[in-house]
Order: sequence, then C-alpha cells, then structure tokens
Amino acid sequence: MEAKELKAAVLDAKKFISEKSKEISQAVGDGLAINALSGGVDSSAVTMLGHKALGGRLKTYFINNGLMRHNEPQQIVELFGKLGVRVEILDAQDKFFRALKGITDPEEKREAVTQTFYKDVFGKLVRESQAKYLLQGTILTDVDETVAGIKRQHNVFAQLGIDPQKAFGYQIIEPLVQLRKDGVRKIAEALGLPQSVYQRIPFPGPALAARVIGEVTPEKIKLVRQATQIAEELLSTSGAFQYMAILHQDRVTGMREGKREFGLQIEIRCWDSIDARNATPTRLSFDILDAMAKRITDEVPGVVSVTYNITSKPPSTMEVV
Amino acid sequence: MEAKELKAAVLDAKKFISEKSKEISQAVGDGLAINALSGGVDSSAVTMLGHKALGGRLKTYFINNGLMRHNEPQQIVELFGKLGVRVEILDAQDKFFRALKGITDPEEKREAVTQTFYKDVFGKLVRESQAKYLLQGTILTDVDETVAGIKRQHNVFAQLGIDPQKAFGYQIIEPLVQLRKDGVRKIAEALGLPQSVYQRIPFPGPALAARVIGEVTPEKIKLVRQATQIAEELLSTSGAFQYMAILHQDRVTGMREGKREFGLQIEIRCWDSIDARNATPTRLSFDILDAMAKRITDEVPGVVSVTYNITSKPPSTMEVV
Repeated sequence: MEAKELKAAVLDAKKFISEKSKEISQAVGDGLAINALSGGVDSSAVTMLGHKALGGRLKTYFINNGLMRHNEPQQIVELFGKLGVRVEILDAQDKFFRALKGITDPEEKREAVTQTFYKDVFGKLVRESQAKYLLQGTILTDVDETVAGIKRQHNVFAQLGIDPQKAFGYQIIEPLVQLRKDGVRKIAEALGLPQSVYQRIPFPGPALAARVIGEVTPEKIKLVRQATQIAEELLSTSGAFQYMAILHQDRVTGMREGKREFGLQIEIRCWDSIDARNATPTRLSFDILDAMAKRITDEVPGVVSVTYNITSKPPSTMEVV
Repeated sequence: MEAKELKAAVLDAKKFISEKSKEISQAVGDGLAINALSGGVDSSAVTMLGHKALGGRLKTYFINNGLMRHNEPQQIVELFGKLGVRVEILDAQDKFFRALKGITDPEEKREAVTQTFYKDVFGKLVRESQAKYLLQGTILTDVDETVAGIKRQHNVFAQLGIDPQKAFGYQIIEPLVQLRKDGVRKIAEALGLPQSVYQRIPFPGPALAARVIGEVTPEKIKLVRQATQIAEELLSTSGAFQYMAILHQDRVTGMREGKREFGLQIEIRCWDSIDARNATPTRLSFDILDAMAKRITDEVPGVVSVTYNITSKPPSTMEVV
C-alpha cells in the first residue's frame, strides 16, 4: 500500500489526530501496544497519539543504547512524566556496543543497530509484554530515502517487502507515514508537546553511531557526545533545521605545546531545510565557527581539527553515515 | 651552528643578496653547484641567488615527481626561461609513486618523498653532474617545526644532526635559513622575480602527497589535483596566505540522481598568516564557499562532500599530512 502524502500546509492537525487515534484504537482493540520513545519529534508525537488512543494499554520504553546524547535518557523521562506519560528506561548499552564491534561500513552499522533494537532488545520486551502492536514514528522521507537506496532507515520494513510479523513477531502501526517533518511538527504541537520537542532538531535512529565514521566504540561515542553537546549549545539559537558533530576516522597532523600531535578531526554540519529532502549549509558567522573550533579542540581530548560542511544536499546527505 | 633570525621588517634586501652571493661564490669556488627548483618562492629565490653568484656553474633542475599541480612543470620552466635561467625537467613520476605505495603514515610519507628525492633521483643527478654543492631553500620556520618534532620538512638535515656529506654525498648550502616567509618574499622581489612568484602561496615539499590522507596513488593525486585547481581559481583573489584542497580517506554517504553514493570528501583550508607560525582560517564569504563545494562535487569524480577548516594553528597545522 502506497502512503499518500499529506502536505503540512493543508494539514488539519485536529482532524488528523482524531482520525489517527481512532485508527489506532480500532487496530489494537483490547490488546496491548508498545512503543519506543527516542525523544525526537516523530517518536514523541507517536507516543502522545498512542496514549491519547490507548491510555494505559500503550507501554512506552526508552531504550538506552549507549548512543544517546549527554543526559538524554533522564531528560526525556522527566519531560514525559510532566505530561502524564510514564516512560521506562531499559539499559541495553552493552548489547549495542557488542553488535557494533568491528563494523565500519555505514549500512552494516545501521543494520547492526536495527537488528539489535528489534530482534534482541525491543523484540524481547514485546514478547514479555504480550503486546502484539508496535507504534512507530516512520515518516515519508524515511520511506523515500530507503526505497531509493540512499539510506537504510530503521523503520521501513513493509516498504522493503519485509513482513515484521514474520521477521520480528509483531505488527507495526505507522500513523505518521504520510507526513514529512514539517507536518509532524504541527501534529506534535497540536498534541500539547512543548516547543523543545516539536521544534527539536532531528536526530537519527542509530543516534551517535551515525556520527562516527568507522568502527563505533564506547570511547569514540564519548568523544562525539562531548562535541555534540558543544555544537548544540552554540547552535541552539541558530534557527537551523539540524546540526551535528561528526567524529572522523582519518587522523590529521596538529600541534600542542609546540609538539606534533597526530590527532582527531570533528566535522560540524548545520543545515537549513524545510523538509530534509533538500538542504543547504547554514551561513553561520565566523565568530560562531571560531568559538566552536576553539571549544571543541580545547575540551574534547585528542581533537586538533574542526571543519564545517559547505556542501548542499544533494549531493551530500544530511547525516554522514 | 644556530641560524640567527633576520626579521623581514629590518631586512636590507640588496645587502642580503650581495652578501649571500659572495658567500655562495666563495663556498663553491671553481666547482659546480646544483639545485632543484620547485617553483615556490623559497626555491625560486635560491635559484636566482645561485645564478647571480655562479652563472653557468649552477645547474637547475625541476624534478617532476608526479605530485605537482596542473601544468606546473611547464609553467615554471617557461617563467624562468624568460628570466634567462635554463631549467631542465627530469621525469621521475614512477619512482615517487613506487616509493609511496602502501604508505599511510604522514611522517613515513614525507620520508618516502625525501628519500626518493635525495637518494634516488636527485642524488643520482648530483653524482652524474660532478657537483659537490647543493643549494637549498630551507627557511627558519622549517627548522623550528622539524626540531620541535611538529613536522619533518625535507631539508633540515644539519639541524637534526644528519651529515648530508656522509648520508647523501654532497654539501648543502642554505642561504635563506635565517629568514621567514615574509623575508624571503622581499628577497625574491629584489632579485627581480615576478609578483606571481614572490607573492605565490606556499606549497609543501611533498607537494600533493601532503594533500592526500592515507595511501598516495596516481588516481588520488589526479583527484586532489583537480580539486586544488578549482580551489586556487576561486581563492587566488582572496588575499589569503595559503589555501589548499585535501582528499580525505574516510568515505561519506552522499546521493546522486536519487541514489545513495558512498563517496569522497575534500577539505578546503584557507589561511590568514604573516609567517606561518600562527594562522587563522580566512573568513571567506559563503558565496565563495558554496561555489567551491558546487564546482568540486560537480567536476571531481566521486566527491560528494566538501568541508572548510575552521580551526586555527595551533592546535591545527597548516598542512594535514
């Protein structure tokens, strides 16, 4: 079944929410549903939609894969707690790092995160919970890019001809699949989520694993997490669509205290975009770029070089992995 | 013997040229001297100084190591021909690429270029020419950085306690070793070299091999040569001290005609500096940065991403290798 696009400009948020709530209620019936909340606008909107439709029959989990940003698990649980939604944190850090060990290919990396998430961690949760339904925040851009072979998003099984019932033992409900990012933001706002969520910048499914070129290790995640925190602090008022720090695998020559240091490089990307299909680098001031490079090379151990992406999408993609 | 710094501001160019000419004449006597001209301001100044001092007793060679920029050998021979200096081109491309094969470490890469240049290619030339003296354009910044262990420049043997007479069979004369880049530019101008030479941006000894992260191959040199040509076209009027294109080894995700392409990344660096000891990224306009990224991703095969360096030296160095 092809998803028919609903453009944000003509989207009636109240009507959409009421229709989707009804659809979810009818699909799940008396059963139990489950969903994983990452804190992004897509999964946050789905969580609120699901709770509206199912109340206590929806169990919401935050999977701590060890790949999230600084303090992210705690912040998200707290935020949803204030909205009356109980979110349980599941610590699965070791499993994800074990699955990522030795993998350098970007597609295999995304695949390792996907398989660990669905088969190992979340699949187990679902079986234990007796839930037969999985609510998921797939949006139309994810489907487009996966079908086109640009990127393997971790939530587009049906579109690839994979039956999640057979492969993973449950049915996936994707209430946002007709929307792009701008549409989801409208829905999230109408669902009563705070601005920090509905205007939150996108963050990828494989989380910080998508921000490391080459093998993902706990040590590299720690470095890219620090750089990400600095980038987000400096760019939160930029008005950009998305921004990120990427840890490169290539080593570059630098100098510390007059001595040669064969060090690390961080790439910063900051995107202007409406719907993530096309994007251009934000024209940041050199005062900000300079402050960013100084803070990252001062604060992140081993980093001697910082670059800023100046390529548009296409031919670049927004994420590097 | 320590080289005593001569500051550009107080440098009397005419006096310097006359003194150094005399020193070179006295050192070489009736013998033959030889030098290699790369076309940079340092080796160009040494070539003119040497010809002033020795006339036909200085043989000047341009070693085509296969690592030079687009059309560079031809342009340099032509330019010096107009100044009455005969320069012979020696094709040694295969030797350099063979020496670089399989090497990924930056220091080993510089060492391979150095050893091939001195022992293999230039050493042979010197032995055949019966010259006992080598004129060389080492400047004070090269010495500082090599002694400090920041970078192995390919012309600072004495400072490292290596005897070139024993190691390579000839004596090295370094008339510019008390100067920094700004001083050399003054001398080059006073020697009658054209502005395109005395204001020419620095270019490293290992040439484009210093602009490739990882193994250097003829294919990678071809790509970085194309990117360099584009960068130099767009930045020649920037007033910057130096600018360069660097081919990374890391692969990044991009898209072409709606399909995923796991492609290459080029990093652009453009430096404001007085004497190369400290440097800051030039605050280029985003119109130029955007045009650069477009041209490089359109014209250089396989490149899907371009970044701009935003780190100062230190902790960065100017070159990446």
